[in-house]
Amino acid sequence: MDMNTVARLASRPVGLVTRENFDISEQPRIEPGEGQFQVKVEMISIDPAMRGWINEGRSYVPPVGIGEVMRALAGGTVVKSNHPGFSVGDTVTGLFGVQAYALSDGAGVAVVDTGKATLADWLGGLGMPGMTAYFGLTEIGQPKAGETVLVSAASGAVGSIVGQLAKIMGCRTVGIAGGPEKCRYVVEELGFDGCIDYKNDTLTQALDTHCPDGVDVYFENVGGEIFDTVLTRMNLFGRIAVCGMISVYNATKAPPGPRNLRAVLVNRLTMRGFIVFDFIDRYPEAIRALGDWHDQGRIKFRQDVRPGGIQAFPEVLNLLFSGANQGKLVLQV
Amino acid sequence: MDMNTVARLASRPVGLVTRENFDISEQPRIEPGEGQFQVKVEMISIDPAMRGWINEGRSYVPPVGIGEVMRALAGGTVVKSNHPGFSVGDTVTGLFGVQAYALSDGAGVAVVDTGKATLADWLGGLGMPGMTAYFGLTEIGQPKAGETVLVSAASGAVGSIVGQLAKIMGCRTVGIAGGPEKCRYVVEELGFDGCIDYKNDTLTQALDTHCPDGVDVYFENVGGEIFDTVLTRMNLFGRIAVCGMISVYNATKAPPGPRNLRAVLVNRLTMRGFIVFDFIDRYPEAIRALGDWHDQGRIKFRQDVRPGGIQAFPEVLNLLFSGANQGKLVLQV
Repeated sequence: MDMNTVARLASRPVGLVTRENFDISEQPRIEPGEGQFQVKVEMISIDPAMRGWINEGRSYVPPVGIGEVMRALAGGTVVKSNHPGFSVGDTVTGLFGVQAYALSDGAGVAVVDTGKATLADWLGGLGMPGMTAYFGLTEIGQPKAGETVLVSAASGAVGSIVGQLAKIMGCRTVGIAGGPEKCRYVVEELGFDGCIDYKNDTLTQALDTHCPDGVDVYFENVGGEIFDTVLTRMNLFGRIAVCGMISVYNATKAPPGPRNLRAVLVNRLTMRGFIVFDFIDRYPEAIRALGDWHDQGRIKFRQDVRPGGIQAFPEVLNLLFSGANQGKLVLQV
Repeated sequence: MDMNTVARLASRPVGLVTRENFDISEQPRIEPGEGQFQVKVEMISIDPAMRGWINEGRSYVPPVGIGEVMRALAGGTVVKSNHPGFSVGDTVTGLFGVQAYALSDGAGVAVVDTGKATLADWLGGLGMPGMTAYFGLTEIGQPKAGETVLVSAASGAVGSIVGQLAKIMGCRTVGIAGGPEKCRYVVEELGFDGCIDYKNDTLTQALDTHCPDGVDVYFENVGGEIFDTVLTRMNLFGRIAVCGMISVYNATKAPPGPRNLRAVLVNRLTMRGFIVFDFIDRYPEAIRALGDWHDQGRIKFRQDVRPGGIQAFPEVLNLLFSGANQGKLVLQV
């Protein structure tokens, strides 16, 4: 009997996830029924949002239930098909979950061209992270040439693209990242004008140095103290695109809020939360724009592909929260 | 020699203002020069923003300097004029300061029609508070008929008008105010659908009762814990118009920030700070709209006019922060 390796949520984590929060086991592979196809999953996208999906309670999507397959974006190859739109051999991306083989009816699944970009790119710069960067920066940040754009988690899957897009738009672009190697990468390889090492620099001083004219657009990925400090540097009518708050995702109680929120009033800031799904009607526009810039060599994507298969999922997920990944984190199955 | 009574800032307050923070004294009245006129100040508008104006440091306007006349919106009568646009006998409003007689060159001064509304109304519902309510609700809140609009400081100068406008726009309108008398006023006289007494009700329970479908628009006047709790009840794509944060204006150190700010991300909220001066080009539109609704009896203005003259300024200002005022607070000179 053909088998599948499946990671199911066994219990809800308190703080960082542990191996025990998942039941990873072998089970018989289910054959596709009429209108379905089977995907051999090759790469699983590891995203900060996953941590939220396994909390109980209200969020932007229902939580993964106990005993359910862990939700994940992933990419792979169609190996069996009873669906007219998907043929054996197609490379596809979709919400296939943390498992070696997935069944699909095609909802939310895209056939991607691996001649144009790697499967990892289709999960990264040309996938959700790239589109998140695109819509958050252009729709919410609305940067104008000459303005200063500050990006936290600047070497990450989303932040690295935000900064490169801001440069294309003619902005002074400054990143915040953890450690000298990430900062070097952000400046030397991605072309940011500067990068603040939050692990070693004093944030207030570094902001004075790198953002001498204040901050017009802040692309927020981290929350916590960094956000609170950046609030003090926002310019009049500044925009804050709230994409993520990774610093609080593993908090076991609500962490202290920003003390400087009065800046929203004094400087008439606009702060807006968003998720990429809000822009689903415009995905083709984003993929086209990102693809063109990538083809022209104007934006680079970096993937951090980790081995270990399904069994390694819990520890690979935690790399995001220790900041150990370098670019878009992907688990190879 | 003709004399003037003038309140000057003597020192910067720590916490609530005290009598000692102001030097209130008699001094010779200065005669208007060419292109100037003299106003006999009759009513001084007492506004929460005043507390911010006397702090040191960056805000949306420069702070009042030590030794300078305390900044204030006020209304009065032109008693001497060398200005072609202003005649003796005109009733005017402008930034005349906390003093009995003011000199002006006409900048920012409006001649008002006391046949149409009282001078107190021209400082209240047809003045800055009314326009603040109008622009904050319509431009930032953007309420749609059937949505729920929640307003803090609901019996105050701005909040009372926000709620009445929200009712005109067909919204379920709920206030937050301190004490049963203010809540009664908000519901019975202003026509809100409900009012939460934050001094006596449990806010979470009261929100469940009065906003069973959540909150689409929150008009924020107070900040602090109320804001933090309301964040948990905001609906998807909700809007928060940040008009004021009166609860923190007298704080001697930065108070704790909202712990529930992650709601901005999860529910894709838009939070935007504003001040009425941002909409200066559209003041005539607002005054016309508010005036028409007032003439039609669709909105009520309430003024709380306090006696005592210039000498009473510090204690009257503090009424705002204890919540002792009932409607727009005005000091009669």
